[in-house]
Amino acid sequence: MRGNRDTKIPPRMSLPVAIALGDPAGVGAEITAKIYAEAEARALPRFFAVGSRNALAAAWKGPIETIGSPQDALRVFDHALPLIEVEHSEDVRFGEPSLEGARCALDSLEFATGLVRSGAASALVTAPVSKSQLHAIGFNHPGQTEFVAERCGVAPENIAMMLAGPNLKCVPVTMHISLADVPRVLTTDMITARIRATARGLIRNFGVVRPRIAVSGLNPHAGESKLMGTEEEDIILPAIEALAGEPFDVFGPLPADTMFHPRARAGYDAAICMYHDQALIPVKTLHFDEGVNLTLGLPIVRTSPDHGTAFDIAGKGFARPDAMAAALALADFCAEQRMLYDREEA
Amino acid sequence: MRGNRDTKIPPRMSLPVAIALGDPAGVGAEITAKIYAEAEARALPRFFAVGSRNALAAAWKGPIETIGSPQDALRVFDHALPLIEVEHSEDVRFGEPSLEGARCALDSLEFATGLVRSGAASALVTAPVSKSQLHAIGFNHPGQTEFVAERCGVAPENIAMMLAGPNLKCVPVTMHISLADVPRVLTTDMITARIRATARGLIRNFGVVRPRIAVSGLNPHAGESKLMGTEEEDIILPAIEALAGEPFDVFGPLPADTMFHPRARAGYDAAICMYHDQALIPVKTLHFDEGVNLTLGLPIVRTSPDHGTAFDIAGKGFARPDAMAAALALADFCAEQRMLYDREEA
Repeated sequence: MRGNRDTKIPPRMSLPVAIALGDPAGVGAEITAKIYAEAEARALPRFFAVGSRNALAAAWKGPIETIGSPQDALRVFDHALPLIEVEHSEDVRFGEPSLEGARCALDSLEFATGLVRSGAASALVTAPVSKSQLHAIGFNHPGQTEFVAERCGVAPENIAMMLAGPNLKCVPVTMHISLADVPRVLTTDMITARIRATARGLIRNFGVVRPRIAVSGLNPHAGESKLMGTEEEDIILPAIEALAGEPFDVFGPLPADTMFHPRARAGYDAAICMYHDQALIPVKTLHFDEGVNLTLGLPIVRTSPDHGTAFDIAGKGFARPDAMAAALALADFCAEQRMLYDREEA
Repeated sequence: MRGNRDTKIPPRMSLPVAIALGDPAGVGAEITAKIYAEAEARALPRFFAVGSRNALAAAWKGPIETIGSPQDALRVFDHALPLIEVEHSEDVRFGEPSLEGARCALDSLEFATGLVRSGAASALVTAPVSKSQLHAIGFNHPGQTEFVAERCGVAPENIAMMLAGPNLKCVPVTMHISLADVPRVLTTDMITARIRATARGLIRNFGVVRPRIAVSGLNPHAGESKLMGTEEEDIILPAIEALAGEPFDVFGPLPADTMFHPRARAGYDAAICMYHDQALIPVKTLHFDEGVNLTLGLPIVRTSPDHGTAFDIAGKGFARPDAMAAALALADFCAEQRMLYDREEA
């Protein structure tokens, strides 16, 4: 672990992680119950759920105990799944999202975010929601990430989404826009902001002392000296040059196709990619079942499993909990790293 | 190997593979000599080189024997590297390409292509050339692939480039153009032609009885019902629908980021991708040292290692021969499969 802080691993923090259960009709309750049942085998940290008791009880026959405050989770966790209940009175039908379910998902997210912001929980993990259901009840953010950012008082342009697997971390500069829009939208400022958020995130959340950040090109062969596109010279290179002298190493633009094999990955801590698929193809090809979405640039640690509500399989018992387990483990790891970092800085 | 022809592996064919050595100043001679030296250990088929004796002798101190015809290679191979010599009188300086070297590379390519076309060699493997040097001597094709296609009487729009590794085969629809040009250039006809060439290639070169072909979308989440781009509905889906009833299964457009993990790959024999990096990121992430470029749609089998001349390391002895070995093995495999196929069809 070159360049990581040389620290002893501290004892487990005395704060639990908060998991917002997401849409009650999705897989959130099921995968949360599964990782509770496997917490010891997977060496997972203690956590509590925030959301619908109906959904949790419909997904799992094991013990659930409603708690009044996060601190209770530490005591309860050994014998029951601790739950901070959010009102949701309808019967849950997995795979059939409803407006009332969307309201419950939003309330759960808001409540869980507040608990982590207040310092009562160590980190926030969010299970998947249905964006179309949320929009139907008047939610006007693109997704949970922007909502959490707003509740944390951070402007959306200063956050970055990191897709993290055990062997690769990628941060896309642009995200949910058409491919044709990518060259039109991409600016030097956006790239600079993402690189800075990534560098800070690696320092605070991963204990990297001096981050090494690789930046992809936009075009095949990174443009090959402007033969196939000029964005590398006009937009990307100026962003990299503008960061000379900052406390991290950043290099590129690199041909994207040769950035992600094992020897190339050994040369950097995170890769900045220009668009959605450029970042997500390598992470999901290598780490499909354990990809975690980590939001950088927030005052809190927030992760989520990198998959959707999976309404088609919800409630049937075969949703894989691996990504949720990875999201929980990473949230706990990053919260510990932050505690160490803040202690050093203090 | 679901759906593959149930045949006994035939004895090694009685024809050698032809390897065009590429630019004399590049790594072609070095990696060809290395795979000759390791041919038995790697269980490689017999072959002969076509190109510069000076380059081969500068790269390797082992025995080289000039042969007059491909058939001699089978006899010579056990004690010396068989070479069909192409005139090249200058001293070779690795890493310093020259116009005379480019002429030798082109003559080697032309000669080797002719030998395979004539039936004297089983398949063609081409080592890397310098495109800028070739263009400087008046070569007016985009690359070796289009030159070979022309010599085989095939229009460039009917060939397809397959990037093949042991666990993934991808065919890009567009190739060496800027990302901004991809949505402008992509047409339904191009996609249909690539899918057809891929299906035929899987049947003839890989012995797949009924190919299963997965087609990617262009946009994130394959457009997510036109929320992020309309090319899926307007351009890609019509291509897939136009192929209903053909003797292969084709499906999509699929979100590109979830197409390449192991369980997804188990569902298809080859993936059709919309642009260069979408196809090459997954293949090179999984198979960086053994990626092979296979040209589909030709009357002959042609492969090449998926890397360039590597002028920066040529002649220093540490070029990896893995991709060249994989290109040779795949050329031989495909030639055998074709022989079986042609015999069944006859």
